[in-house]
Formats: sequence, C-alpha cells, structure tokens
Amino acid sequence: MRASVLTPALELVIEQRPVPPVATNDVLVQVSSVGVCGSDVHYYRHGRIADFVVEQPMVLGHEAAGRIVAAGEAVDPRRIGERVSIEPQRPRLDSAQSLSGHYNLDPDIEFYATPPIDGAFAEYVSIPSVFAHRIPESMSDDAAALLEPLSVGIAAAQKAQLTVGDKVLIAGAGPIGLVLVQVAAAYGATEIVVSDLDAARLALAEQLGATASYDPRRGEQPEEPRFDVFFDASGAAPAVVAGIRALAPLGRAVLVGMGADDYALPISTIQNRELLVTGVFRYANTWPTAIGLVQSGAVNLDVLVSGRFGLDQVKEALDTAGSAEVLKNMVLPGLA
Amino acid sequence: MRASVLTPALELVIEQRPVPPVATNDVLVQVSSVGVCGSDVHYYRHGRIADFVVEQPMVLGHEAAGRIVAAGEAVDPRRIGERVSIEPQRPRLDSAQSLSGHYNLDPDIEFYATPPIDGAFAEYVSIPSVFAHRIPESMSDDAAALLEPLSVGIAAAQKAQLTVGDKVLIAGAGPIGLVLVQVAAAYGATEIVVSDLDAARLALAEQLGATASYDPRRGEQPEEPRFDVFFDASGAAPAVVAGIRALAPLGRAVLVGMGADDYALPISTIQNRELLVTGVFRYANTWPTAIGLVQSGAVNLDVLVSGRFGLDQVKEALDTAGSAEVLKNMVLPGLA
Amino acid sequence: MRASVLTPALELVIEQRPVPPVATNDVLVQVSSVGVCGSDVHYYRHGRIADFVVEQPMVLGHEAAGRIVAAGEAVDPRRIGERVSIEPQRPRLDSAQSLSGHYNLDPDIEFYATPPIDGAFAEYVSIPSVFAHRIPESMSDDAAALLEPLSVGIAAAQKAQLTVGDKVLIAGAGPIGLVLVQVAAAYGATEIVVSDLDAARLALAEQLGATASYDPRRGEQPEEPRFDVFFDASGAAPAVVAGIRALAPLGRAVLVGMGADDYALPISTIQNRELLVTGVFRYANTWPTAIGLVQSGAVNLDVLVSGRFGLDQVKEALDTAGSAEVLKNMVLPGLA
Amino acid sequence: MRASVLTPALELVIEQRPVPPVATNDVLVQVSSVGVCGSDVHYYRHGRIADFVVEQPMVLGHEAAGRIVAAGEAVDPRRIGERVSIEPQRPRLDSAQSLSGHYNLDPDIEFYATPPIDGAFAEYVSIPSVFAHRIPESMSDDAAALLEPLSVGIAAAQKAQLTVGDKVLIAGAGPIGLVLVQVAAAYGATEIVVSDLDAARLALAEQLGATASYDPRRGEQPEEPRFDVFFDASGAAPAVVAGIRALAPLGRAVLVGMGADDYALPISTIQNRELLVTGVFRYANTWPTAIGLVQSGAVNLDVLVSGRFGLDQVKEALDTAGSAEVLKNMVLPGLA
Repeated sequence: MRASVLTPALELVIEQRPVPPVATNDVLVQVSSVGVCGSDVHYYRHGRIADFVVEQPMVLGHEAAGRIVAAGEAVDPRRIGERVSIEPQRPRLDSAQSLSGHYNLDPDIEFYATPPIDGAFAEYVSIPSVFAHRIPESMSDDAAALLEPLSVGIAAAQKAQLTVGDKVLIAGAGPIGLVLVQVAAAYGATEIVVSDLDAARLALAEQLGATASYDPRRGEQPEEPRFDVFFDASGAAPAVVAGIRALAPLGRAVLVGMGADDYALPISTIQNRELLVTGVFRYANTWPTAIGLVQSGAVNLDVLVSGRFGLDQVKEALDTAGSAEVLKNMVLPGLA
Repeated sequence: MRASVLTPALELVIEQRPVPPVATNDVLVQVSSVGVCGSDVHYYRHGRIADFVVEQPMVLGHEAAGRIVAAGEAVDPRRIGERVSIEPQRPRLDSAQSLSGHYNLDPDIEFYATPPIDGAFAEYVSIPSVFAHRIPESMSDDAAALLEPLSVGIAAAQKAQLTVGDKVLIAGAGPIGLVLVQVAAAYGATEIVVSDLDAARLALAEQLGATASYDPRRGEQPEEPRFDVFFDASGAAPAVVAGIRALAPLGRAVLVGMGADDYALPISTIQNRELLVTGVFRYANTWPTAIGLVQSGAVNLDVLVSGRFGLDQVKEALDTAGSAEVLKNMVLPGLA
Repeated sequence: MRASVLTPALELVIEQRPVPPVATNDVLVQVSSVGVCGSDVHYYRHGRIADFVVEQPMVLGHEAAGRIVAAGEAVDPRRIGERVSIEPQRPRLDSAQSLSGHYNLDPDIEFYATPPIDGAFAEYVSIPSVFAHRIPESMSDDAAALLEPLSVGIAAAQKAQLTVGDKVLIAGAGPIGLVLVQVAAAYGATEIVVSDLDAARLALAEQLGATASYDPRRGEQPEEPRFDVFFDASGAAPAVVAGIRALAPLGRAVLVGMGADDYALPISTIQNRELLVTGVFRYANTWPTAIGLVQSGAVNLDVLVSGRFGLDQVKEALDTAGSAEVLKNMVLPGLA
Repeated sequence: MRASVLTPALELVIEQRPVPPVATNDVLVQVSSVGVCGSDVHYYRHGRIADFVVEQPMVLGHEAAGRIVAAGEAVDPRRIGERVSIEPQRPRLDSAQSLSGHYNLDPDIEFYATPPIDGAFAEYVSIPSVFAHRIPESMSDDAAALLEPLSVGIAAAQKAQLTVGDKVLIAGAGPIGLVLVQVAAAYGATEIVVSDLDAARLALAEQLGATASYDPRRGEQPEEPRFDVFFDASGAAPAVVAGIRALAPLGRAVLVGMGADDYALPISTIQNRELLVTGVFRYANTWPTAIGLVQSGAVNLDVLVSGRFGLDQVKEALDTAGSAEVLKNMVLPGLA
C-alpha cells in the first residue's frame, strides 16, 4: 500500500509499505478521509511534541474514516463492508484506568501518529474492532473523520459538566473552538461567546451558534464575571487567564488547547470563586454521542472542511494548515 | 461590654461598647473561646487582605464559641442557655447563591472580622440563630471554637470528592494542615503524606494520622505521581506546583492556603492527566458534620491549642501566633 | 379584589376579598394568567390530596404570571411594573433543606393552593420578591404561567441526570409529558419515545420532538431494554412497571405523575440492572433555566393552551380539564 | 485435581478433573479458602436462581483466595507464588459496559458458580491475571476470600454516595449486613442502626460498629424518618418498605439482599421525599479499596468465619449455612 511518511529529517515521502496485519480483535480499514490536526503540523515542523520525538519514519494523521475490508479472527466477518469512523487509540483493556472507564489515560496506550505509532495518511490502517465505529449512510467521509475532533469537544463538555442554561465562553475559533460552539449549543447553553483574532472565524462561529463574539485586541471582552463554563481552544496564556477571570463563582474552566507547559493563573480568583480548572486528554466513550450529534444535525462538521488533498499532496496540506483561511484540510488517500 | 479593637493605625485597644442588638432571627452569644487565625494576624500586621481594608476600628476573631444569652423575637426562647459554636457568616438567604446551597458565595455576605464587620474578640456577639450550632456537653469551648477551621477542612474534603481508599498529599502542617490530616483519615484515606519545614509539626501530623511525612528541603518528596488528592495548606507556590505534579491521572488539587494572587502552574500536566484544580472559599452546611467528627473522636481539636489569652492579651496572642512553636492561640474573653 | 374560592363543600364561589398585604420581602402581583393543574381538579373533585384537606375556603391555582404592582419595604421599588412568572412557594429560608439548596423540601414550606394556603385564581397575589421571576417582553402571559409545569420537567431532567445522547422513554402525553418531550430534546436526547392512549396527544408529542410514539394497548412497546431515562407522567402503575423494565443497565426512572401510594415494582430488575428509581417534589432553582428554554425557542408552552376562562368561569375550566381534548386550560382573572 | 461438583440432580460429588488450562492473560490459582455464599446454598437446594439453571454438573463457590501457581503467556511470570484474592468474574473487556467502567454489567460476562461456569470449590481455578489481586502477607486466607462480600458492601456504599456524617440504617445482620456495618463506619457514618431477628447477630453488629440495633418484631423501629442511607441486606419486602419509609428527604436506598422479583414499594413517599432507590449487581473496581480497608483494620472479615470444611465436607458446609448460628462457612480445598 501507499503511505505518506514523515522522516526523522522531517521530510515527507511516499512509501510502498505492506498492508498492516489484522490482529485477532482488529479490523483492517481502507482509509477514505483523514483530517489534518495541529499536532500533525507540529510533528512535521518540529519533529516532536513534548517527550514524543519522531526518531524513525512515521505516518501522520489520526482523524480518520474509511471502510472495513478485513476482520480479525474474533471479529464478526459481517462487519466487512461497513463504513466506519476510527477512534485512533489502542489501550490495554485490562489496565486499572481502562477497567474504570478511563482508557484514554491508560499509561501503555498506543495512539495514531504519536511516535512511534503510525497514523492514517495511508491507504490502509488497522484498529481494534470496537474502535471502528459504524456510521450512518447519510454521513460524509469527511464528517466521519472529523468525529475525532468532535469527540474532543464532547469530552470537554462532559468534563465541564455542561448543561442546559449554562453561559459559555470559548477562546479560539479554530476547528476545536468551532466544534465547541456547536457542542455547547447541543448541550443547551443559552449564551455562547467566542473570542478570536480573525473576523471571518468569528463570523463562522456566530453562524454555527455563538450568540456573540469579539476580538480581544479590541478590549471588547465581557466585563463582569458571569460565565458558567470557559473552554480554551487557543492555547494562549492571556486568553486562559482572561477566561478564568470571566467565570462566575463555581465556574468550570476546561483547557483544551495545547500551549506552554507552565504559566501563571489567577490563583486567588480560583480560590475565592471556587472555580474548577482542568483539562482533557483526548476522550473515552464519546463516539456514540458524536455520531448522534451529527446525525441529528445538531453539529455540522462538513462546514469545517477547507480543502482536500491526495497522499502526494500531504506536504501542501500541512504547509497551508496553519493559515487563517484554512480551518481543516483533509487528506483523501484514494484521491486520484 | 469589653471588646478588643484594632484601629486603622493597627493598634489594639480595649473598648467599652454597647452589647450588640439582637435582630429578629438572631441570638446573642456570650463568647467563651475564640481561635486566632492567620487572617487575624494579617489584618493586625498589614491592615488589609486584598481589597478588604481596615478603615475604621474593628474587632478581630471569627473562630468562636459561647453560650446563648438572648434570642430574637422569631427565635425559640428555649435556646437561651445553649452552648454553641458560631458559624461566623451572615449571608442574604434569598440570593441565587444561597438558594442553591452555596450561601458562602453570596456576594452580599457579611463575615466576622472581615472589614467592616466586627468579629468575636469581645464579650458578646450576635449571629443568626441558625448559625449558632448547639454542641454536645462533652465538647470543650476551645474545640467548639475550632469547629470553624475544621469546617474549612471538611469543605476542602467535599470539594476534593475525598473517599475511602484515596491517597492524600498535604502541604503544610499548621492548624489547617493538621485538621486536614484528621479529616482525610475520617474520610477513609489509606495513605496520608504531609510536608512541612518544621520537624515538630511533622511529628504531630504523624501522631494525628499521617502515614508519612517529609521536609521538602531534603528532597524527600514522592517520586512518582500517585496521589488522588492534594491539599495545599501552605500557600507557597513551590509546594502547590510540587503537589499538583504528585497527582495521578484524575487527581484533585484543592488550594486552601492563601498565598500570592497569581503564580505559574504546570498546565500541561494538568491537561495530560486531566487533573482538577480548585479552591474553597470558607464553607457551607459543614457544622453538623464537624460536630459529628469531634463527638465521635475522629477529629481532635483540643490538641491544636497552644495558649490561652484574655481580652487584654490579644496583642500577645497575635504577636506569637506566627511562630513555629505556636499552632493555635485562643482568646478567652472571660479570662480573668 | 375578586377571587374564585373553593369551599369545603366543594363549591366554587366568587368572593370579594381584601388585597393581600405585602410583607417586607414580598411583592404584590396583579395576576394575568393561571394554568389549571391536575391537582386543582383533584381538590375541586375530592376536597383533598393525601393528608392535605380543604377544611376552609381556599383559592386554587398555582401556575401563575402577572405584573408587580407593589413592593415590600425591603424590595427595590423599581420592580413595580415588571412582568413576572410566579414560583408559587414560600419556604423558610433558614431551614437545613433551604440552606443546602433544596428549599422545595423545607418541612415548613407554604405552597399556593395547598391547604390552607390560597392560590392564584384571584386578581392579586403576594409572593417573595425573589420568587417573582422577571420575564422577557416577548414571552406571553400564558407561557409565563406555564413556566411552573416546565420547572417540574426541568427538575425531573436534572434528577435523571439527562444529557446529550440519552435515549428517553416518556409515559403519558398530557401537559407534563409534553413538557418532558421538549425538555428531553433541549437536553440533547437523541431518541424520545412517548406512550399514551390518545392518538391526538401522541401526534402532538411527535410534533414537539418525540422521535416515536405508541399506544400501550396495541402492544407496540419497545421490546429490548434500551432506554437511559424513563419519565413517568401518567401515574399509572402498569406504565411505571413497563417503563422501568424498558431501561438499560444504569438507567434512571423519575416518577413525576402522582398515582397510587403503593404498588409493586420489578425489584430484581432494578437490582440486576442497577437502575435508579426516584421522584421529584416540585422544583428548586429552575426558573432561570425555564425562562432561557422558552426564550430560545427550545420549548413552546403556548402550544399547550386549550382554552381561556375568566374568574367567573373557573368551574367550567375545571370541569373540562380532564377531557381528552383539553391539554391546559388557563384562567385569566382580568378577562372581561 | 479434585473438585466438589453439584449435579443437576442436586447431589454433591467429588470428581477428579483436569487442572483448568491457563489462557494467555490468565493465571492458575491453587485455592486456599472459599466462602459459602447464600447463592451457593440456593443453587444446592433449588437448582436455579431466576433464569440461571444447573443443567450440567457445576462447581459452586465464588468467594475465593489462593496462590498463583502458573501464568499465561502474556502474564509476568514473576506473579507465580503470589498470594491472591480472586475477583470471580470474566467480562468481555471491549463491551460498551466494560469500556465505560461498568464491566460487572457486561452482558456476556462469565461469573464463578453461575451456570454453566464452574466456581472455586476445587483445588485449582483459572482467572484473568488482572482479577487475581495480590494481598498483603498479613491478611489471612479466609479474609482474602471474603474480600468478595466486602466488595459487595463497597459497591453498595459507592452507589449510596455514602459519606462522612451520614446516618445509616441496615436491615439484616447476616454476613453482608455485618460487612455493611463495618463499611458504613469506614465511610464515616456517624449513626449506624441495624435490624435483625437474631439477638446474637445484633450484638455482633454493635461490636463491629453499629451505634444501635433492634428486632423489628418488637416494634422498636425508628419513628421519624431521619436516615440518609438505607441498605437492605435481608431481601425481605417488609424490611425494605420500612427502611425506605425511615429515610429523610433525599435519602438513598440500596437493595443488596435478593428476595422476591416484585413487591410493593411506598411510591408516594419515594416521590414526596425525592428518595433514590437502586441496587447493586456485584461490583467493579472495588478490590483495591477492599484490601485497604482490611489492611488498615477498618474492616475485620475473620470475625465472620463460623467453620472450616474440606472438599469432602461441602455438603455439610452448605447444609449448615442457613442456620442462625452460622455466619460464614469456609471451604478449604487443601484441608486434610
């Protein structure tokens, strides 16, 4: 099969590789669409994220969908032919974390496109059968791939205990921020305010359900602390600090965007208002909810797609991914 | 009546004042014992805490017990004569926060010894009847007064969702830290590790239920992150950072000690382990639990008492309160 | 003022009564619209509900809206003129239940139209200021009155821990059932199945968001237990039993409809599936959420209104309230 | 190996059987001690529990401890020699229930001594490595076996959200009731009242931490509803009804004892007090907590042991298990 491979010298090359073997509980998926994530771009540019270093050739891409073409011995062969969205993780199912429902925190987990595990910019990938989630016929390949970032948003909403009537502030209107806008609306938030530096993204945020938006450089941020939930999808320390300060007593801040390892938070504000600050590390058990939200129309993922690229064009997909005009590039391994 | 008053010039003087009036739902309490808290010392030395400034003469002291000597019109007169522990707050009961069970977060709350509200270093104080909590005969006056810091510990345990089998790390073995050791044991923690710079306090912590203790200057801190709950009772940024780093995935950090308004936290650790960081602002609905814990013997408050002082000796009580040898000084307004 | 009064002989008479006095923290409300509830009908027909007996003349009606025309001494006089929805309860705010956020469970609570407390089929009523909730101009008087049954639905949803992706079964498509359909949709339920004996009500349920409906007499009920939440709005024991049996493991059953005091439940099913069975007693702290749901259009209350009656026509409003064609009769004290 | 086998004719015979094979992730355990549970007695007497029927020869016993003597390929061979307590279940780890932390509710689970799965009245058993829990050297074989019923108690406490200061009522002072007394104390309950028909068991309950006890035939039950938590360990409908009626508003009833499939509950009481009624189906993720509670001395399991029997004496162990004098018989396969 063909795969787009990132070398330790940070060059992208097309390689012919053997189709992955199909373990007992796995399925083999012919990949139809893969989203380009900020972490893919980061590995491509810097060769590492924190302690994870690209030390051998690796396939990027972890937001993926496709069709099952083979099934392991323990898997119902009738699954062959199913269109699926891939939950790109392989935890040890008998770790203490997995047994208590938090398999995303299993210390031995393998995750697509996290060194040294290969991702999905390839014609075929294998995944445990249970993490190949059947999708309805009406769902596009791109939307099926983007259930992955939607799952991040759902995990954040669950962590925030988001519920009907909440007032929500979101920093950042990139793909995750725009997912969070829609998730917040789906969870019944009655006020959804978004900040970003890009006017077009703010306009899209309002189109997708935000009730207000502002550019923080213009000093338009809310004055009194009145939000129940703050989601950071920017990774920018000043945005996080402003977001926490905007929370009413008992408010919850969920830090989704990755930024600096350490920075100052308004500690006495956290204490005096009994705020809760936390983060999400991927997701667990979110795909059924994600599928339901797209199927019901509550969340629109196709609107996020900016461009589509073949395996030969992964470099272009990654190079343009950071620009203001591009929300979400998709790699389609089958694109002619 | 006699009261010890702190002037805006930060002098302590004994004043003759009228006995406080008793409002409809209040009781009048003849004060038997009052603990000296770090915040009392802070007002005495600096004249302010954050935005709260001593701009007119004020009585300090908010950890108080006594005996009811008069009752407002709407209060059952049979309460006169009861020995009580005082919950030193006066929220508006019809605020949104109060109606939802968080009266400690009522924005219009009045609290003893928080400017401009007078505290309890006086012969008599008034308090809403419902916040004058009847104590069992077996409980000492000092213990009754110290139900207040115990309530802080209970509020922290509730916020941490502390439960049987948890592993707990506590930074600081002052009065709050030593209360937290006992609270953690009462909640069923199976491992309780305490850090402090003072060997005698660490010894007392172990005597009160800590399973291990260490001086952070000796580099003896735990190596792998394995704690479920971290309580900071030090207010020291390095201790908070080390405590958060010592938490296992899904661990909860409750910051109880007051320190700098802002400082750096290990954000990526909070995110990658899905840690929860929060604080407590006093307490609500904790007194019944506090009384139960002392009555059953699970918590020993008398052991914290270092010395007893009359109203004339409040200056001495405050001057010595910060030293290593003194855990908790008590002011006894009736002391000859 | 004029009021429609139910006598202990269960006759309805118009009485001239003095306008109620306005206590310190109360407001006086000129009533615009009042919904007829099943409990009003029950008192009218039977003179009692459980231990509450109509032993002296009493005004019925507790789903009420109006305009503030006078304010007690402690209330901001600028509230006069506000259009408000009435939360018809008067708890003791310093009971243990109220202080912990459950004022609806205060043992000394007074509630409109629960003997011997007068309700709202009258030109004027008084209520604590904090329970006169300001409504937006766009909300109709009828909808403002019906925030009360909507609050029951919100309380049920909160008790059920209803969240995005849940599958919900509702027994009964009367006013409460139809509110629950809309509340379930607002909370993000992806499947909402309703049962009732009346085809027109089932049709309305589907129009309001139910994804399926059935008549239990036709044996069309779901076969495999797959629901996350069951709401009973029928009060019928067979419906409750069938609903509990339809729950998947860890499902939650909230019994909202009032029926027999005691009846058999499928205990071993509750045990083996770890189901949770509970009920709601009115509501607390729900009005802001209710207002938000109506304002956003997520819930339509006006659609429930069947007819409008003047004070002289309360008998007619009550007599017709139980029929299949009538969902919700409204009493408009100002109707000519 | 030798095993005590129950035939479909409900006769107990000693069979020579092959030692069980050791699957990849399993360990083989040489059984040291096994508790006799009420369900074992029920199968022995009636040949079935609900839909589970003894249709082929089956080994009883599911409260078991022993020593690892062999390890599957994927298991660390250094585990051989460990003393372990057995969590006697084998769920599919990739079911939706298991992945969300509720593996006890996996629909395809296999459980010791539940037809047709063999239990532990045998010299050797196999179990997934992760469910063979290492025990400290200080723990007796009997206590290690009885971590199983202790786990039931812990699961019940978690379901009841039991916490410090709660008032607890327990119906039944058999082995589960006596475990619950100790668990309630460990969770910080300040009042623990137990009912039973047997005076000796009530005396033991008080010795183990109950603060009061009574015989319901003497009409000594509590008069006012004041308990936060009710545990039924009797399976008797009248005890369950009385227990639910004894709950204060917001109280939680956890039905642990197995009794009739259906019986009447006080529905209007459940509704008006917003009580929560639920059950537990075995347990998940409880062993670490159970081990901690025994190790710390908070729970004493050895005190429950009434007699010890060899494999040849299983009939005697089962025949005497229901009597008032016998709390817990143990089967020791290695007993000469």
